[in-house]
Formats: sequence, C-alpha cells, structure tokens
Amino acid sequence: MKKLKRSGRLVDMTHFLLQHPHEIVSLTHFSERYQAAKSSISEDLVIIKDMFEEEGYGALVTIPGASGGVKFMPKMNKQEAEQLIGELVQALNKQERILPGGYLYMMDLLGNPKLMHKVGRLFAAVLADKEIDAVMTVATKGIPLAYAVGHYLGVPVSIVRRDHRITEGSMVSINYASGSSDRIQTMTLARRSLAPGSKVFIVDDFMKAGGTLRGMVDLLEEFEADLVGIGVLVESAEVSERLVDDYLSLTKLTNVNVREKVIDVTEGNILTKLETS
Amino acid sequence: MKKLKRSGRLVDMTHFLLQHPHEIVSLTHFSERYQAAKSSISEDLVIIKDMFEEEGYGALVTIPGASGGVKFMPKMNKQEAEQLIGELVQALNKQERILPGGYLYMMDLLGNPKLMHKVGRLFAAVLADKEIDAVMTVATKGIPLAYAVGHYLGVPVSIVRRDHRITEGSMVSINYASGSSDRIQTMTLARRSLAPGSKVFIVDDFMKAGGTLRGMVDLLEEFEADLVGIGVLVESAEVSERLVDDYLSLTKLTNVNVREKVIDVTEGNILTKLETS
Repeated sequence: MKKLKRSGRLVDMTHFLLQHPHEIVSLTHFSERYQAAKSSISEDLVIIKDMFEEEGYGALVTIPGASGGVKFMPKMNKQEAEQLIGELVQALNKQERILPGGYLYMMDLLGNPKLMHKVGRLFAAVLADKEIDAVMTVATKGIPLAYAVGHYLGVPVSIVRRDHRITEGSMVSINYASGSSDRIQTMTLARRSLAPGSKVFIVDDFMKAGGTLRGMVDLLEEFEADLVGIGVLVESAEVSERLVDDYLSLTKLTNVNVREKVIDVTEGNILTKLETS
Repeated sequence: MKKLKRSGRLVDMTHFLLQHPHEIVSLTHFSERYQAAKSSISEDLVIIKDMFEEEGYGALVTIPGASGGVKFMPKMNKQEAEQLIGELVQALNKQERILPGGYLYMMDLLGNPKLMHKVGRLFAAVLADKEIDAVMTVATKGIPLAYAVGHYLGVPVSIVRRDHRITEGSMVSINYASGSSDRIQTMTLARRSLAPGSKVFIVDDFMKAGGTLRGMVDLLEEFEADLVGIGVLVESAEVSERLVDDYLSLTKLTNVNVREKVIDVTEGNILTKLETS
C-alpha cells in the first residue's frame, strides 16, 4: 500500500477495525501497512477511539505487552438501543402477525440483514466483556440472529438441527421435551461443529416455555461446553413454568389471542442489562 | 451530534456508509449530521471514495438530482478475491471432509461469520450493477451465505424450507426432483416472504446436479418473480446433466472418492466474472 495521509489512514483503519471485531490488531500491522511511525498510528487510533466511543459504536481497547495492540469491541449506546427496541416493538404489534397456535409471523424481520445486524450489535454490546467462544442456535429461524451475534463477537456459529437430512458426519443427539406440548423430540449437533470446552452463548428467535433452549443447554454438556448466556428476539410471557432461568430478551409477547386477533408486545429485559456509558 | 473536524467526520462517514450498502444517502443527511457545508461533505466523500476505490473496498457512486446523494457499492479487488478463493480451495482440499455419498463437511467454513462476510462481499462485487430485490436460499446450510450476500446488497433474504415444522402462515409448495436421486421432494416458501415481481438472486452451499436450485427457480414462477442469477460455494463437477445453466461458483469439486479418500477441489468460475477495476 502506498504511503497515506492521515485522512486516508483514518478511512482505511475504520474500515479494517469494523471488519475485525474482537480481534487484537498490533500497532505494527498498521504502521507497516501505512509506512507510518507508531506514534502517528497511535494518534490516529485516538481519533477513531474518541469518535467510536462518543457515538457508542464501540470501544477501542489497548492491550499492552509484546502480543498487544488494539481491539475493537462493538457497542451500542442507550439511545440507539432504545430506538431499536422501540422499532421492534412497533413492528411486532400488528395483528396480521398472529398465526395459529399463538405464534407470530416474523420472517420479514428475521429476513432483514440490516435489522439482524443491529440486533447482533446490541447483543454483542451487552456481552462485550464476557468470554465467548461460540454462538449456538437451532435451525432455522435462529440462524440469522446467531450469525449477526457471531459476527460482532468475532466467533463461530454452531447450528443444531431437528431434522435428519443431515450430511455432517458423526452427530451427537439428545432428546428433549418441547415445553409447550410435552412431546419428546430429538436435536442433533455435528460432533465437529463445536470444540470441546467452548464457552457458548445460545440464541433463538422465540421462547415460550424454553424447552428448545433447555435442550440446547443440555446438549452443551455432551460437548463439555459451558453456557455463558441465552438471548431471544421475543419471549412469550404466557407460560406457567419456564425451563430456563436467565436470559436476555429484546421484546416480550405479553398477550396474544388468536380468536380475537389481539396482540400485545412490549420491550424485553435487555435494556436493563446494557451498561450506560 | 456536535460539530466535528474533518478527521472525526471521515471516521463517522466511513462507519455509516459501511453499514448502509446500496442505499442512497443524501448529502443533506451528512451536512445536517455534522453541521458542515455541503462543499466540505463533498470533499470528505472524495477522500473516502479514493480510498475505497484504491483498496477495492467498493465504489462510491454519486446520484445526481433532487433525490440524489451517494451510494456505497461493496466491491472486492482481484487480488483479495483470488486470495479468498485460494483460502477456500486449500481449506476444502482435506480428505477428512469427505462424507458418505461424496458430500463434504463444510460447517466449519459455513459457521465462520467473517469468512461468510468475505464471500458475501465477493458475490456482491460481481452483482453490484444488477438490479436485485431479494436473495433466496434453502434451509439450512445456504442461510449463512444468503445473509452475507443480502447484507452487502442491502436486500432481504427469503428462506425456502424442506420440512413441515412451519409456523409462517400460508405457504406455497412445489414438488421437485432431487437431481442425484430422482426422488420427488417438496419445498415450501411462506407467501409473505417474497414480494411478487421481485428480482431474485439464489444461493446455496453445494450444487451437484442442481435439482434443489432448479426447484427454487421453479418456485420463483409461483411468486411471479424473476431470476437474476445463481451462486454456490461449491459446485460438483461430477454430474452427467446439470439442471441449471448459468451460475457463479467459488470452488469446484472435480473429484471425490469416498473409498480411497481422494478429494480434489479447484477454483470455480467467479473470478472470470469479476470486473477488473
């Protein structure tokens, strides 16, 4: 790369950092890339850091020592988070979403990559200081969420399957009780798709009693993996007994009546977990 | 937002443009956001444009007129594209990937959001000048690819399903012949998940004879939607008759022998479609 002025470096470094969340980048990397002194690079990074932190895009953390450098940790400020939750609540509060069984049609939201990216950034903001090695979800509708969170945390995604059309080599299966129907079902994860001992954040689009999430938590044990937390786009409040305790929810379905076409969605608990910075 | 110097504006504008691919952003948006004259904003954009185009991150196109502004179109230069394809070819050429039936284990690649983002950017680069309204794929393994492409093109994703555990309201189903087995199968898409008349790019992780892709092309007709193109991560060259004609492939599986554990993957055709800029 040719020698650049500060203005060019700022554009290029911003681009680079955004594409490498939660990775430690050495100052040497930048100083070689731009043929610039480390002192100039440090000054550039201060400008980026100030801007990112002021607007709540994320933190730029300096890691000292020989293997040190800077790490970009995506964040979201309270105002942007409130606006995002507000948009979701408004979008969900539409009676035409109501499906038989009290489910909600959500593919228009889940099918929107920009919205999913924002949701992923909000989860990543709340989880920024946790040690996480992988994001797990169950096919199909949790996948967009899982990739968005995985992207902003810089970690891989493991996809649990409920079907048997599987071409992924040796698999680990467990049985679990779907909370709503008490029906025994099977879920499966490829042996190679999660490293033993991983610290895992689990996500799904919708949680009723939490049977599917409970199944995934149980599946972690088979991989000697640890649960870091659970996140859902929508939790349903209409359950007598919840099979998981601790979770982050973006929105909460407090009332749905299929016959009378009534729906009531409010904000979930995630805003209370967002550090005010 | 408080008044910023050029250096701060460059960081913030770079961040904003990267999060809004293929959207027209008016100069007024930026000049109000930074309380800066449009002439200053134009100068900022020239700096960003030069940097993006020099490094091949994308084009910054000026749209004239009252509803005009700038549009960021993600791109990838030849060198980065060749490196990405090279990495994929190397990663795929491992005999431990071979699964019964001549399938390949690929979840480690598909489960890597950063890699998927790069692949999405490469597809978006090749497709930058096409008019595309949606990306379609089939659950499960095509989904990561579809979201990455959808993100960089700024369009929604439609997920076709092969199972029947579906809570998405009224559905459109078609039968299709899986090319490899000639077995008749069913695929389904929620009526609400694709707007009639959409121009659609279809992606999948793996293509043998192309029966599943052919099914999706046929499904488009039910939505009066048009096919813009097809993209796959891996095409298998070992087929006597292909059910789709025109497609982009990142890699090509030229030989796989389950018994002798031989695998041979080379580059696909996508590099020949990438404009040299």
